[in-house]
Amino acid sequence: MEEKTPLILVTNDDGINAKGISALIEIVKPFGNIVVVAPMHANSGMSHAITVNTPLRYKKLSEKDNIKIYSCSGTPVDSVKLGLSEILYRKPDLIVSGINHGSNSSISIVYSGTMAAVIEGCISGIPAIGFSLLSFDSDADFSSVKKYGQKIVSNVINNGLPKNTCLNVNVPLIPFNDIKGVKICRQAKGVWKEEFDKRIDPRDGEYFWLTGYFEGSENGSTDTDEWALNNNYISIVPVKIDLTDYSNIEYLKKWNYEI
Amino acid sequence: MEEKTPLILVTNDDGINAKGISALIEIVKPFGNIVVVAPMHANSGMSHAITVNTPLRYKKLSEKDNIKIYSCSGTPVDSVKLGLSEILYRKPDLIVSGINHGSNSSISIVYSGTMAAVIEGCISGIPAIGFSLLSFDSDADFSSVKKYGQKIVSNVINNGLPKNTCLNVNVPLIPFNDIKGVKICRQAKGVWKEEFDKRIDPRDGEYFWLTGYFEGSENGSTDTDEWALNNNYISIVPVKIDLTDYSNIEYLKKWNYEI
Repeated sequence: MEEKTPLILVTNDDGINAKGISALIEIVKPFGNIVVVAPMHANSGMSHAITVNTPLRYKKLSEKDNIKIYSCSGTPVDSVKLGLSEILYRKPDLIVSGINHGSNSSISIVYSGTMAAVIEGCISGIPAIGFSLLSFDSDADFSSVKKYGQKIVSNVINNGLPKNTCLNVNVPLIPFNDIKGVKICRQAKGVWKEEFDKRIDPRDGEYFWLTGYFEGSENGSTDTDEWALNNNYISIVPVKIDLTDYSNIEYLKKWNYEI
Repeated sequence: MEEKTPLILVTNDDGINAKGISALIEIVKPFGNIVVVAPMHANSGMSHAITVNTPLRYKKLSEKDNIKIYSCSGTPVDSVKLGLSEILYRKPDLIVSGINHGSNSSISIVYSGTMAAVIEGCISGIPAIGFSLLSFDSDADFSSVKKYGQKIVSNVINNGLPKNTCLNVNVPLIPFNDIKGVKICRQAKGVWKEEFDKRIDPRDGEYFWLTGYFEGSENGSTDTDEWALNNNYISIVPVKIDLTDYSNIEYLKKWNYEI
């Protein structure tokens, strides 16, 4: 039986120069051949955006040992699409995204470019994992993610992932020895409360910086990602790509749509 | 009992000057006070992107009868956030988005700015509906959407929507009399197959236009949005904001995460 070396695509949303993606490359390096295709610049909050009105470019930055690194002019999802269609020589066995500088737990997943890249991989039928550390510090210490990250990657390389499912992994910002382990969770209910920071420009024009704070709306449930992270666990949420709310199909069928 | 005139926020992703949003304003005009906050420029494919690295601005364009119109410098989701936080005088009773020039059925919902605005409303606890017509023509004929659109809006104004559920409405591009009615559906499985259009610029640099085609992967199921649209029905998919794949939580708990 021929052993095939796994091919792993690495991306992120903080851009190719972020510390988090270097840490992620270190995590997956032992598992196969690594191709990095990541945005040239920071793309936080870009969600699943794709670039349709301007063309895309990519550039090879380096090749050393088993690691090739490319930058992409577009978004995280553009990077995955360009990687899969133009850069990789075959379909990869795994896509990893991150390590994000900041949490992607609860509703933050909806805004996350990191997780959008993961979901894009999942749509294309490729096992995919997103990693995020609960620190926005550009010089954050990602060392606590490494051992658990490798354990999770190893599980996925060996078992694959169920079809149409990808993983959202969040890691609390605590020393490695304080991490109690891994919890498989559901996405906690919550919302970002907006507080626009209103300012006046030198020409008397109003402008607004989008800011805000996360507000959870769970009442003590212990099965959510928010609970796990607040209790020193790494959270893993299995994420699906079918957004249908099946629980309301029959209810909506009862309405009258006749005209 | 005091009758409160409904307050309706209208947005889209094709931009404030698109024909589709004018058609949508006509649909909701009889139902209450209308505030439009929509992107200044086309924002197709922007998904749930938010603007975090540049400030946002908005501008009042007009006020006539029960309709106020504002443009926003950001994305569809920025428009909703700015509308809710800075422009509206109270929480709206309904958010409608569209009418999108082009389908948002099946997996297209993931890339859609139209539906992201709807989901953003849903996250904030506001009933929300996205409308899309299966035509990319900037001068498309939206008249077939009007009567069914008003019926759907009327249902939602009268009944509300179940918590954490919003609606993705797609309308086939056929004459009104050929529409067979409305089907409540699930999101069809499918994927956009990328075919990057590679070109060479005058300085010999490679660049790529993102293009592609939709490929469904259903085998004759009659309960999907794709089936409904292909069979002359308007499709309504109830959409949820919890992305957790509950069906795989127990399976993933069986893996070994000990290090």
